Amino acid sequence: MAKFMKKRSQKAGLPPGTLVYTGDRPAKDVEVSVAHYNAQDYKETLQKTFRECPLGLDASHITWINLNGIHQVENLESLGDCYHLHPLVQEDILNPDQRPKVEDYGDYLFIIVKMLHLKEKPEGLFTEQVSIVLGENFVISLQENDKDIFDPVRQRLKIGKGRSRGEGADYLAYALLDLIVDHYFVILERLGEIIEDLEEELVANPTPVTLNRIHRLKRDMIILRKSVWPLREVVSQLERRESSLIKDSTNLFLKDLYDHVIQVIDNIETFRDILAGMLDIYLSSLSNRLNEVMKVLTMIATIFIPLTFIAGVYGMNFKHMPELEWPWGYYSALLVMALVSLGMILYFRKKGWLGQKG
Amino acid sequence: MAKFMKKRSQKAGLPPGTLVYTGDRPAKDVEVSVAHYNAQDYKETLQKTFRECPLGLDASHITWINLNGIHQVENLESLGDCYHLHPLVQEDILNPDQRPKVEDYGDYLFIIVKMLHLKEKPEGLFTEQVSIVLGENFVISLQENDKDIFDPVRQRLKIGKGRSRGEGADYLAYALLDLIVDHYFVILERLGEIIEDLEEELVANPTPVTLNRIHRLKRDMIILRKSVWPLREVVSQLERRESSLIKDSTNLFLKDLYDHVIQVIDNIETFRDILAGMLDIYLSSLSNRLNEVMKVLTMIATIFIPLTFIAGVYGMNFKHMPELEWPWGYYSALLVMALVSLGMILYFRKKGWLGQKG
Amino acid sequence: MAKFMKKRSQKAGLPPGTLVYTGDRPAKDVEVSVAHYNAQDYKETLQKTFRECPLGLDASHITWINLNGIHQVENLESLGDCYHLHPLVQEDILNPDQRPKVEDYGDYLFIIVKMLHLKEKPEGLFTEQVSIVLGENFVISLQENDKDIFDPVRQRLKIGKGRSRGEGADYLAYALLDLIVDHYFVILERLGEIIEDLEEELVANPTPVTLNRIHRLKRDMIILRKSVWPLREVVSQLERRESSLIKDSTNLFLKDLYDHVIQVIDNIETFRDILAGMLDIYLSSLSNRLNEVMKVLTMIATIFIPLTFIAGVYGMNFKHMPELEWPWGYYSALLVMALVSLGMILYFRKKGWLGQKG
Amino acid sequence: MAKFMKKRSQKAGLPPGTLVYTGDRPAKDVEVSVAHYNAQDYKETLQKTFRECPLGLDASHITWINLNGIHQVENLESLGDCYHLHPLVQEDILNPDQRPKVEDYGDYLFIIVKMLHLKEKPEGLFTEQVSIVLGENFVISLQENDKDIFDPVRQRLKIGKGRSRGEGADYLAYALLDLIVDHYFVILERLGEIIEDLEEELVANPTPVTLNRIHRLKRDMIILRKSVWPLREVVSQLERRESSLIKDSTNLFLKDLYDHVIQVIDNIETFRDILAGMLDIYLSSLSNRLNEVMKVLTMIATIFIPLTFIAGVYGMNFKHMPELEWPWGYYSALLVMALVSLGMILYFRKKGWLGQKG
Amino acid sequence: MAKFMKKRSQKAGLPPGTLVYTGDRPAKDVEVSVAHYNAQDYKETLQKTFRECPLGLDASHITWINLNGIHQVENLESLGDCYHLHPLVQEDILNPDQRPKVEDYGDYLFIIVKMLHLKEKPEGLFTEQVSIVLGENFVISLQENDKDIFDPVRQRLKIGKGRSRGEGADYLAYALLDLIVDHYFVILERLGEIIEDLEEELVANPTPVTLNRIHRLKRDMIILRKSVWPLREVVSQLERRESSLIKDSTNLFLKDLYDHVIQVIDNIETFRDILAGMLDIYLSSLSNRLNEVMKVLTMIATIFIPLTFIAGVYGMNFKHMPELEWPWGYYSALLVMALVSLGMILYFRKKGWLGQKG
Repeated sequence: MAKFMKKRSQKAGLPPGTLVYTGDRPAKDVEVSVAHYNAQDYKETLQKTFRECPLGLDASHITWINLNGIHQVENLESLGDCYHLHPLVQEDILNPDQRPKVEDYGDYLFIIVKMLHLKEKPEGLFTEQVSIVLGENFVISLQENDKDIFDPVRQRLKIGKGRSRGEGADYLAYALLDLIVDHYFVILERLGEIIEDLEEELVANPTPVTLNRIHRLKRDMIILRKSVWPLREVVSQLERRESSLIKDSTNLFLKDLYDHVIQVIDNIETFRDILAGMLDIYLSSLSNRLNEVMKVLTMIATIFIPLTFIAGVYGMNFKHMPELEWPWGYYSALLVMALVSLGMILYFRKKGWLGQKG
Repeated sequence: MAKFMKKRSQKAGLPPGTLVYTGDRPAKDVEVSVAHYNAQDYKETLQKTFRECPLGLDASHITWINLNGIHQVENLESLGDCYHLHPLVQEDILNPDQRPKVEDYGDYLFIIVKMLHLKEKPEGLFTEQVSIVLGENFVISLQENDKDIFDPVRQRLKIGKGRSRGEGADYLAYALLDLIVDHYFVILERLGEIIEDLEEELVANPTPVTLNRIHRLKRDMIILRKSVWPLREVVSQLERRESSLIKDSTNLFLKDLYDHVIQVIDNIETFRDILAGMLDIYLSSLSNRLNEVMKVLTMIATIFIPLTFIAGVYGMNFKHMPELEWPWGYYSALLVMALVSLGMILYFRKKGWLGQKG
Repeated sequence: MAKFMKKRSQKAGLPPGTLVYTGDRPAKDVEVSVAHYNAQDYKETLQKTFRECPLGLDASHITWINLNGIHQVENLESLGDCYHLHPLVQEDILNPDQRPKVEDYGDYLFIIVKMLHLKEKPEGLFTEQVSIVLGENFVISLQENDKDIFDPVRQRLKIGKGRSRGEGADYLAYALLDLIVDHYFVILERLGEIIEDLEEELVANPTPVTLNRIHRLKRDMIILRKSVWPLREVVSQLERRESSLIKDSTNLFLKDLYDHVIQVIDNIETFRDILAGMLDIYLSSLSNRLNEVMKVLTMIATIFIPLTFIAGVYGMNFKHMPELEWPWGYYSALLVMALVSLGMILYFRKKGWLGQKG
Repeated sequence: MAKFMKKRSQKAGLPPGTLVYTGDRPAKDVEVSVAHYNAQDYKETLQKTFRECPLGLDASHITWINLNGIHQVENLESLGDCYHLHPLVQEDILNPDQRPKVEDYGDYLFIIVKMLHLKEKPEGLFTEQVSIVLGENFVISLQENDKDIFDPVRQRLKIGKGRSRGEGADYLAYALLDLIVDHYFVILERLGEIIEDLEEELVANPTPVTLNRIHRLKRDMIILRKSVWPLREVVSQLERRESSLIKDSTNLFLKDLYDHVIQVIDNIETFRDILAGMLDIYLSSLSNRLNEVMKVLTMIATIFIPLTFIAGVYGMNFKHMPELEWPWGYYSALLVMALVSLGMILYFRKKGWLGQKG
Repeated sequence: MAKFMKKRSQKAGLPPGTLVYTGDRPAKDVEVSVAHYNAQDYKETLQKTFRECPLGLDASHITWINLNGIHQVENLESLGDCYHLHPLVQEDILNPDQRPKVEDYGDYLFIIVKMLHLKEKPEGLFTEQVSIVLGENFVISLQENDKDIFDPVRQRLKIGKGRSRGEGADYLAYALLDLIVDHYFVILERLGEIIEDLEEELVANPTPVTLNRIHRLKRDMIILRKSVWPLREVVSQLERRESSLIKDSTNLFLKDLYDHVIQVIDNIETFRDILAGMLDIYLSSLSNRLNEVMKVLTMIATIFIPLTFIAGVYGMNFKHMPELEWPWGYYSALLVMALVSLGMILYFRKKGWLGQKG
C-alpha cells in the first residue's frame, strides 16, 4: 500500500526518539541552501551537507535553511544540535507518515504539512512531507524530494519584490505555507478537468475502464482529504496562537490562508459528492443497457419462436395431415405466421418497447 | 469544471495580494453607479469607470457605490485607495471563487455572498459573486455580471417608499442581502417545480433522460448548498456582532433574514432527500421492467420450446415410426401440444406471473 | 411542489415587512372567537372579523383571541395595532412557510408551530401553520384553516374542568401546544399502521405499487421531520427561558411537553430507519424473483434445446443416414433424449435449483 | 405497530396529567411487595393491592416497594399520595412509551428504564417499562409485567450476602439498574449467536428466509438502540448529579455501570455494522447466482442453437440440394457440428467461464 | 460471536464486584515477573504465582510487576491486597471485554488497552486485553495470553540503553503503551498489503471468494476501530491530566503517542473508505459481466433464431411449395440467410456491442 502508508514496522520495538528514515522515496542528492537576508541585502550558499551551524546569526537578518532530501540522518542531527531541536521533532521529520500538525516548543514552532504531486507514472497523487521550523529569526524547511518546491519564494526574496524581504521569519513561514496551498488549487483544477472528462465519458460510453478511473479518483480524493483536513486545524492554530513568534501583521495573512484552506476543503467535498453520484449513474447505466439488450433478445425470440413452432408443425411427417394437401396450405401457413408476428409487434408497441429506442 | 471551480492556477507562485481577476465570465460593460441619499433627497450618477473618489461624503448622507463588472482592476484599485480597502479585500473581490464570509476590518465590514442564476443555455445553476463593503455611512457593492441585480432596492430608494431612505448604511446592506436571499426562494420554487415534473416522469415513463435530469439537479443542489450553508454563518455573525456599524434597529431585520436563510437550507436538504429517493426509485423501476421483460420472454420460450421439440420429434425421418402411420397421429400430436401449453399456463398462473401484469 | 414549499416568489423584491398572504389554502370563512375567563367565570364572543380591540382587559382575567383563517390582512392589522405586534411578526403569521420557532419581543413571546393533517384526497400529510402570541394576560392563536383545532381546550375552559381555568396565560399557551403534540402521536400511530400493512405486503406480494407507497411514506416522513425537529428547539427554549411571562408552575409541564416532542422525534427516526430497510428488501425481493424466473427459463431451455437438436439431426434429408434405416432407430433416439434430459435434471438437482423452490 | 409504538391516541385531547394506562400487555395479577431492611434485619410482606402507606418508615431502615403490574390506577394513586409523587410522574409511569430518563423532583429522583425480553412467539424483542423512584430512605420500583425481574436482588438482600444490606437506598437503586444492564449483555450474546448463524447461512445457502431474518434482526437492533442510547444519558446524569440522595460511595459503582452501558452501545453499533454488511453480501450473492445461471443458459444456448440451425438447413425439402446426395454428406454435417461446438467451448474457456465453476 | 463479544451472561445476577474470569482464551501457564530497577541497577525474579508482596519497595527503585495469564483469580487477589486495588478494578481486569479506558483512583491510575494479534488459524484479528496500573513508583501490567508482549521494553531496561532506566514509573507505563501502539502500525501494514492484493484480484478476476475476503477485512476493521477509537480518549486524558503521577518530562512523549494514535485512526478510516469502495466495484463488475454474458447470448440467439425459422419454413411438407421446385431455390435460401445474419451483425456494430469487447 505504498500510497496510503509508509513502512513503520521497522521501528516497532525501538525506543522512542530513535532516528531512522522510514520513507520510501529518498531524494537522490541532498541539497542544503542557507540564505541570510533583510530588507537591505540577501546572501545565499549552497552545500551538499549540513555539518556546522551558520555563523553570523544576528537579530538584524533572517536565516532560512532549506534541505532537499532528509534521508541522511547526520544532516538532521547537526541541524538539531545547532537549533536545539527536540529528539521527537527530529524523529517526526524523518518519519514521512505524519499528519499535518503544528507544535509549540517555546523557542520555535514545528509545522508539518504535505506537498502533493500528481504523477503520470505510476498514475496518481503522491504526498511529500514538508517540515517547517519557525524560530525567532530563522526558518528551517525540510523537503523529502530533491526537487525544490520553494523556488518561487526564493526568487521573490532574491529580487526583493513584494513585501517579503522586509517582513520577519513568520512571514517567510507563511509564504512557504501559502505556496503549498496554492499548489493544492492547481491539483484540484487538474482533478476537476479529469472529472469533467469522466462525466462526458459516462454519458457517451461507460465501460469498465470508466469505473476504474472513478475508483482511482476516489483514492486520490482520500489522499487529498488526509492531507488537507488536518491542515485546516494547523492554520487555525497558527492564526489564534498568542506565540510571540507570530506578529500581528502576519495574522491577517494567516486568516486569508485559512480561507483558502477552507475553499480547498469545500472543493474536495464537492468532488467527493460528484464522484459518489457518478458511481450511481454508472450502475444505472449498466442496468439500462442490460434492459435494452434483454428487450432486443426478447423481441427477436418472442417473434420467431412461435413462427418456428408453426413451421415445425408442418414439417412433421405424419401420413394424415390434411393441411399439407390443401392447394393454398403453404400460403395459409405463411399468412398465419405473418399475423402472429404482427400481433407480437403490436403488443410490443403497446408496451412501449419500440417507441423508446427502436 | 467551469461550474465548480474557477481557474486559480494562474495565481500559484505569485506573491499574496496580487490583483488578478480569476473569474471566467467578465461583464461586457462596466457600469458604476454612485448614489447619495438621506431621508430628504436622493442623487445618482452613472459612470463607465471609477477613477476619483466621490465628493461630499458627509455624515448626513449615505453613499452607495455599485459596480457591475469587476474585471477592470483599475476601478478596484482607485476604489481601494478612496476607502482604504486592505489588499487582501481587493484580492478576494477579484477572485470569484470565495466562500460567502464576513470579515471585520474595524472601519468597515467586508461581506461576500453568492447570487444565483438559473440559466437555460447551458442549462444549470450559475453563481455570481457579490461583494459588499459596509462602512460608517457608505456601502460599496460589487457584482461580477453586468445585469444589475440590485435594481429593486434602487427603485425603492428613489421613490422613497418604505423605511429604506430614513435608515443608515447598515439597513441598506441588509436590504441588499435580503434581496439576494429572496431570490434564493425563487430559485428553489423553480427547482421544486422541476422536481415535481421529474417525479411524474419517474412514475409514468422513466428513461435514461430522467436519470440525466436527476443527476443535473443533484449538481445544482451541490452548488446551492455551497452558496447557502456558509451564508448562514455570515448572517449569524452579522446579527451577533457588536460592531458599531450595525445599529440595534437593524438587528431584528437581520434576525428575520437569518430565519429566511435557515428556511432556504431546510428546503435544500428536503430536496436533496427527495432526489436521493428518486434515484432509488429509478433503479427499482429499472429492475421492475427487467423482471417484466424477462417474464414475457420466459413465458413465450417456456411454452413454445417444448412444443417445437414435439414437432421436431415427428419431423424425424426414421423409417420405423409407428405414430406416423396412425390415422389420428397428427391430431393426437396437436392435442399433446395443447395440453403441454395449457399445463404451462396453469403453472404460470399459480406463480402469479399472469395475474399481475398480463 | 405544493407540499414542500409555499409560493414566496411573489414577495421577492418587495420591501421587508410587506403584508401579503402567501399560503395556498385560505380558509373559506374567517372566524374570530374572543374569550375572557378566570377561575370564576368564562365569557366568549364569536365574530366574523376582528376590527376593534376587546374591552375590559384587566389583570384579573385572561383573554384568548383565536382566529380561524388568516388570509384577510385587515384582521391581522387591527390585531397588530391592539397588541403592538411588530411588523415582522405580522409578516411571519401571513407567511405559512415558516419553521417552528419562538421569539421574545419583550412584552410578548411569538411562537410558530405546525399542525399536521393526514388527508385522503390528495393522499398525504399536510401542514397548517399555527401562530401563538403569549402576552402578560392574553393569548392570541391564529390558524390557517377554518376547522378549529383548539376546540377541546375551549371545552375544558368552558366547563372549568382540570386546572386550566385557574392558571395563567402561559398555561393556556402550553395547553394549545400540548394539544398539537398529542395530535402528532395520532398521526404517528396512523403512519405506523400503514407501515405495518406495507411490511406485510412486502413479504406477501411486492409490486410497483408497494414501491410507490414506500416513496409516499418517505415524503410524509420528510414533512413530519421538518415540522417536529425545530419544535424541539422551541419547547426547549420556552422551558429554559427566564422570561417573566412563564411561571415556575408551568415549567414542569413544559418539561413534560419536551419529553413528548423527543418521543415523537424518536418515533420518526425509527420509522425512517424502517422505511430505508424496506426499500432494500424491496430491491432484494426483485432480484430474488428475477433469479427464480431465470432459473425456470434456464431449466426449460437447457433441457429442451439439446433434445430439439437431436430431433433436428434425424430430420435431415441426407440420402445416406444409416440410423434412419435401423429398426430400433426411433426408439434409440427417444432413449438418448430421455437420458440427456435425465442428466440435465440430475445436474440441476446437484446445483440445488430444484430443491429450493420447485 | 405494536412493537414500535404504544397506543397513545386515546389520550389526545385529555387534559395533561390524566391517569390512563396506555400499554398493551397488562400483567395478569398485580403483586405488591414491601420490604424493610437494614444491615441487621429484613422484613417483607406480599399484597395484592397497595392501599395504605407502610408504617414504621424510620431513618434506620430502607423501604423497598415493588409493584408487578401497573394497570390498576388505584394502586398508583395511593402510592402517589403516600410519597407525594407529582401527577406528571404518575402519568409517565402509566404511559409505557416513555424514553429512559431521570428527573430530579427535589425529594426524590424519578428514573425510567427499559427491561428487554427476547421472545419466541411472536419472535422478536419486547420492551417492558420499569420505573424507579429513589427517595431519602425508600425505593419504589414498578414493573409492567407480572414476572418479577428483580428477584436476584431480593434474594441477595434476604440472605444478606455482599454489601447490599449495609448500603443506602441509592445503592439499592443502583443494584436494580445494574441487573437490567447485565440482562442487556445476555440479550446481546443471544443476538450475537443468531448473527453468527446467519453469517454461516449467508455463505452456505442464502435464501429469502435469510433476508427476512436479517430484516427482523435489524428491527431488534432499532428497538435495542431506542432503549439503550438514552440510558447512557440517564446513568451519566446520575453519576454527575450533586443530589444529596446519591452518596459518594455509590458514585464509583455508577461509573462502572456507565462503562457497562457504553459497552452495550459499542456492541449494538458493531452488530448494526455487521448487519448492514450482510445485506450487501446477500445482494452480491444474488447477483453471483444470477450470473452463474445465465452462464449455464448462455453456454447451452450458444452451443446448440447454431447446431440446430445446421440440422434445420439439411432438413429443408428443396429439390436441388447437392449435399444431400453426397455419400459422406451426413458425416460431414456431423463433423461441422462437432467443430462448431468445439469452437464455442474453446471460446468459453478463453473467457474463463468454464474454469471458475464448471 | 467469539470475535465480537465475550461471554458475560454467566455474571448476570451476581453482585457487582464478584471476581470471575470471563475471557475465553486463558493462558496455559501463568508467569509472574517482578523487576526492581533504577538508573544504577536492575533485578528481576520470575515466579509461577503471585502470593506475597515484593519486599524492599523504596522510593529509590521502580517496581514493575508483569503477569502473563490472568485467569487464576488468587494471583489477582493477593496483588489487589498488596497495592490496595479497588474491587471494581480487579473485576475489570478479569473481564476481558472492557473498552480501553483510564481511571484515576488517586493513589494509582488504572489503564486498559487492547493488544491486537493477526492470526492465520482461525484467520482474523484477535484482541488481548492488557491492564496497566501506574502507581507512585510501581507499574503493574497484566496480559491475558502467556506470550510476553513487553519483552522489548524489558530488554531495554536490562541493558540500560536509552533513557528508560533513569526515568520514573510514568515513563515505563508510557513505554508499554508506545509498544502496543507501534504494534498497531505493524498490523495496519499487514492489512494494507492484504487490501492491495485484493484490489489487484478485484481488477483481474473477481470471484465470490474476493467478496468473502472483503467481508472478513471489514470485520477486522470493526475490531480495530473498537480497540483504537477509545484509546485516543485514553491517551488524551493521560496527557491533559494533572495527576501528580505523571511528570512534565513524560508529557511530551504522551503528546507524541497521541499523534501516533491519531495516525492509526486516520489509516483505519482510510482503509474503511477503500473497502467500502471495493464492494461497489465488485457489484459493478458483476453487472458488467452479466451484461457481457447477455450480449453474447443475445447476439447468438438473435442471429440464429431467424435463420432457423427460415430453414424451418422450407422444411415444411406442404404439397404445393413452389420455391422447393426452383433450381436455385436452395442457394437463394442460403443467400437470404446470409443477408439476414449480415444485417444483424451490422445492427450490433451500430449499437457498439461488437466494438467494445468482441
